[in-house]
Amino acid sequence: MKIKVFVTLKPGVLDPQGRAIHHALGSLGFDGVQDVRQGKLIELDVADSTDDAAIDAMCRKLLANTVIENYRVEKASPGKVGTGFPSGDAPNQESAA
Amino acid sequence: MKIKVFVTLKPGVLDPQGRAIHHALGSLGFDGVQDVRQGKLIELDVADSTDDAAIDAMCRKLLANTVIENYRVEKASPGKVGTGFPSGDAPNQESAA
Repeated sequence: MKIKVFVTLKPGVLDPQGRAIHHALGSLGFDGVQDVRQGKLIELDVADSTDDAAIDAMCRKLLANTVIENYRVEKASPGKVGTGFPSGDAPNQESAA
Repeated sequence: MKIKVFVTLKPGVLDPQGRAIHHALGSLGFDGVQDVRQGKLIELDVADSTDDAAIDAMCRKLLANTVIENYRVEKASPGKVGTGFPSGDAPNQESAA
């Protein structure tokens, strides 16, 4: 079973990485960028028997620092080409509205 | 306009970060984890006038190293509480099947 965990900084927490990206985009000439926040996308391939409580415990104990980070768990349907475990190479530009 | 860019390593590219997480989960007693891959979730707040070509250029020039990484662009609908820019604190455990 494929699980995606999105870990993002809580609002108000300083994001130096995001700041650096924001600054670099500006110097590359991309204007109109108001804010950038960088988080983590962790893709887990776990046994189907793994229950939600165990996944939540993985997040709280290791994957996210819940003092400054939020996390969101998403079960990727097996068929769908995931971002990290695509059957073939995921197309590089796929804008899903 | 809120944009989410998911950057993940291409299949076959060694992921030491993912390996480290996989190892740590094992030593914390979480069995049944077959594989772990870590990527980046970059949330951009850009002017509505920003077109797809500019976003794609941002990805290719800065946000992703297209030699070893795939990227996927997703436009977050403004209303929806995003993972990184929630109006309030995003609930910490929200499993969306």
